[in-house]
Amino acid sequence: MSNPADPFVEELRAITGAAHVLTDDASTARYVGDWRRNYPGAARAVVRPASTEEVSRVVALCATWGVPVVPQGGNTGLVGGSTPDASSREVVLSLDRMTRVRRVDPLDNSMTLEAGCTVLAAQEAAAAAGRLFPLSLASEGSATVGGVVSTNAGGEQVLRYGNTRDLTLGIEVVLADGRVLDASGALRKDNTGYDLKQLFIGGEGTLGIVTAATFKLHARPDKVVTGWVAVRDPQAAVELLARLGDAVGERVTAFELIGREALAQVLAHGTPGMRDPLAGEHAWAVLFDVSETSALLDPTPAVEDALAGAMEQGLVLDAVLAASGQQAHALWALREHVPEAQRLDGPSIKHDISVAVSRIPEFIAEAGAALEGLLPGIRVVCFGHVGDGNLHYNQSRPPGMSDAAFRAREEAVHDVVHAITARMQGSISAEHGIGRLKQEAFLQYKQPVALELMARIKHALDPENTFNPGRVLPLPVATPRPSSL
Amino acid sequence: MSNPADPFVEELRAITGAAHVLTDDASTARYVGDWRRNYPGAARAVVRPASTEEVSRVVALCATWGVPVVPQGGNTGLVGGSTPDASSREVVLSLDRMTRVRRVDPLDNSMTLEAGCTVLAAQEAAAAAGRLFPLSLASEGSATVGGVVSTNAGGEQVLRYGNTRDLTLGIEVVLADGRVLDASGALRKDNTGYDLKQLFIGGEGTLGIVTAATFKLHARPDKVVTGWVAVRDPQAAVELLARLGDAVGERVTAFELIGREALAQVLAHGTPGMRDPLAGEHAWAVLFDVSETSALLDPTPAVEDALAGAMEQGLVLDAVLAASGQQAHALWALREHVPEAQRLDGPSIKHDISVAVSRIPEFIAEAGAALEGLLPGIRVVCFGHVGDGNLHYNQSRPPGMSDAAFRAREEAVHDVVHAITARMQGSISAEHGIGRLKQEAFLQYKQPVALELMARIKHALDPENTFNPGRVLPLPVATPRPSSL
Repeated sequence: MSNPADPFVEELRAITGAAHVLTDDASTARYVGDWRRNYPGAARAVVRPASTEEVSRVVALCATWGVPVVPQGGNTGLVGGSTPDASSREVVLSLDRMTRVRRVDPLDNSMTLEAGCTVLAAQEAAAAAGRLFPLSLASEGSATVGGVVSTNAGGEQVLRYGNTRDLTLGIEVVLADGRVLDASGALRKDNTGYDLKQLFIGGEGTLGIVTAATFKLHARPDKVVTGWVAVRDPQAAVELLARLGDAVGERVTAFELIGREALAQVLAHGTPGMRDPLAGEHAWAVLFDVSETSALLDPTPAVEDALAGAMEQGLVLDAVLAASGQQAHALWALREHVPEAQRLDGPSIKHDISVAVSRIPEFIAEAGAALEGLLPGIRVVCFGHVGDGNLHYNQSRPPGMSDAAFRAREEAVHDVVHAITARMQGSISAEHGIGRLKQEAFLQYKQPVALELMARIKHALDPENTFNPGRVLPLPVATPRPSSL
Repeated sequence: MSNPADPFVEELRAITGAAHVLTDDASTARYVGDWRRNYPGAARAVVRPASTEEVSRVVALCATWGVPVVPQGGNTGLVGGSTPDASSREVVLSLDRMTRVRRVDPLDNSMTLEAGCTVLAAQEAAAAAGRLFPLSLASEGSATVGGVVSTNAGGEQVLRYGNTRDLTLGIEVVLADGRVLDASGALRKDNTGYDLKQLFIGGEGTLGIVTAATFKLHARPDKVVTGWVAVRDPQAAVELLARLGDAVGERVTAFELIGREALAQVLAHGTPGMRDPLAGEHAWAVLFDVSETSALLDPTPAVEDALAGAMEQGLVLDAVLAASGQQAHALWALREHVPEAQRLDGPSIKHDISVAVSRIPEFIAEAGAALEGLLPGIRVVCFGHVGDGNLHYNQSRPPGMSDAAFRAREEAVHDVVHAITARMQGSISAEHGIGRLKQEAFLQYKQPVALELMARIKHALDPENTFNPGRVLPLPVATPRPSSL
């Protein structure tokens, strides 16, 4: 840890007050490593500014000293993008003291929050004004506004409301030289030049530090129809999604596919009350929500009609609609318990891929066959947001294989899954970003011209590599060459 | 026009075939000037490539020769962004031969079209697959896919479905050195690095040439409830919008405000059948559409309920719902005739501004008072997409003032309107872009740090200023300085 006489740290203290610059191991511990303990790190200091102006001054100071800055929100990321490396050279800039709700405007259906507000606090601020902030994540109690904007977080209601990018009307961002770009207005239309905010949304803190965001709000649902449906196969799931869309339009709020192995692990490792919602053992299930905002309209008959049609067509084998909020909650608990059940089952290899929705069945068939060829008996734990073309396509070890032997094949499994994804014009990181964890696959599978443009943009906006160096794009970033042919 | 022996033009001909390189005045006429005849121009040549590969080769050739390229779609823009200057130095690259529908996938709810497809053709391709492509513009018979993507076009259904940016899943784009960035996949989630496509969407052809786009499709509406409502004032309009949203959620598809002067001009200069839908003379009207995709649900009672509540509250003075498609069409014809009626009334001064929806009443009050102070008797023709915070806030001359005297005050009127817009964190070009027409105001009102970042991005992506030089950003673009403090 840092030398107490470090003059740089003294200057940091002059900006934020000494209490908000942390250097000892005990107080920095929660900031310097990720929660899955994959990336233990050490920082020159952890600084916790209280305002945009303080962020600006801290960044300007770091730029002057040539000290790299690692921005951090709730530190709930999965790819090592928000914690320092082990060099003790980097400063962690935590936004966790910037938790002010600046405005909530129910007439405008928008609100502006500082970066350190949690997603849960954002949901509550919207609810208090009679509105819905639809971003919903497992980590919502800790994940922050700045974090979800910087990683373009997805979650369970993307199908209806979009990713964080779609929910974001504006941002305020501190640039690499400390200046502030204020693009936090609540404009729904603005065609004055390039839409700069889009670079910082999903930029993983490599281009600027998001200090506040203005989000769209939506009408709150009056009722939700939740169903658990056994489908013939993944193709039937995709066709059922289209049928539901024809029947009730964008009211389809969530549409999750759950493969048998995922459900089996939940039933084996779940809490006592958990049980299969349907009799018999089906290979594939879909869990969906259809939500309705109008108190005068009930979509249930339209949903039932669509399910009946899908059953006649052989797409749906069996189905149940939740009769109460409690039943709906129990159905969702099965889905939400999948990651924990897989952890309890033993080591797992994880992917977060996306392809076009209509190609999900082809992906599942091809990847399943290729993995069985690679490691006979491998168990595919396939679940996720099929309505967005996004699967958490995970693997558990074949029966009888040792944990170590399975872990030794991790890269080979990744290669198989990512190569098929890339061949289908898919994404090797649909939700979770690149950070450090996925950089190698990113460099391997992303179109080279895209990587070059990204490097040029990084150089244009952060020429000294102050922000999150080596995350997303590797170091050193090449100086952009003039166009040559 | 070009010398027939121009060796550069000969090389263009070798790429596309001689028939598709135009140099004589008769055949270039429709490409070199804008349709409002505000920007007469002359080109070194007009080239009409038939494929992405030909676009790539043409751009590479132009880069080699140092010839500026002006990309052009349907040439329906309003700001002089897609036609050449008068120097005869620039090449117009028209996408009008690239009209192929590459794929329509109703299961994926997406389609990929080449840049030269018209918006109308895009709507028809979606409809043929039982889906809705919701972009709807007055110019949709001529405006093209490449044009609406490059200008992030809005239109009349933005409230429900978003701007073109929101409808665009992917693009294919030719870069300044002729290379092709293929980001045309139909991914709904992809967090692998910076979202490059966002720069080209709304980039007005200054960063790349969009050669194809992949769009989201939606469920087709089964029925539409169209209403014409007299409201107490603009504040009541905004409150009615919120009430309707509470009642029927995102089914509110369009919500247009129409001031009395706008309606009066339509009634004075409209076609014979046009009449005021309501008895009495009301200062402010709202025209809305509520659309429903489900055949089993009817939102009419919920709409009526919301209107009744708004009437009790004094927000709504009178209202009529269209009883047929024909009546709905007649109501919309009043709205759509406003620009033509204003043209027939005499000279007009136009603005395309946006502010936060909830600040629309404040904008109308402040701008109206300031303009009355500047030019007593000036007639404000105020109409537009109030649901998006976007007004076409136009002016007609005071009674008795000469056309010339009114035109002489145009800049002063712009200054008043734009200054109030900027003070309210609004946009001086909500829909129409910058091009050449709005560059001066753009440079005056955009935050300087935003302009600097845009210049850096332009330099990073088009260092030789090949694409649309001088449009949006002025020439010369400064070389980005390294960060200094």
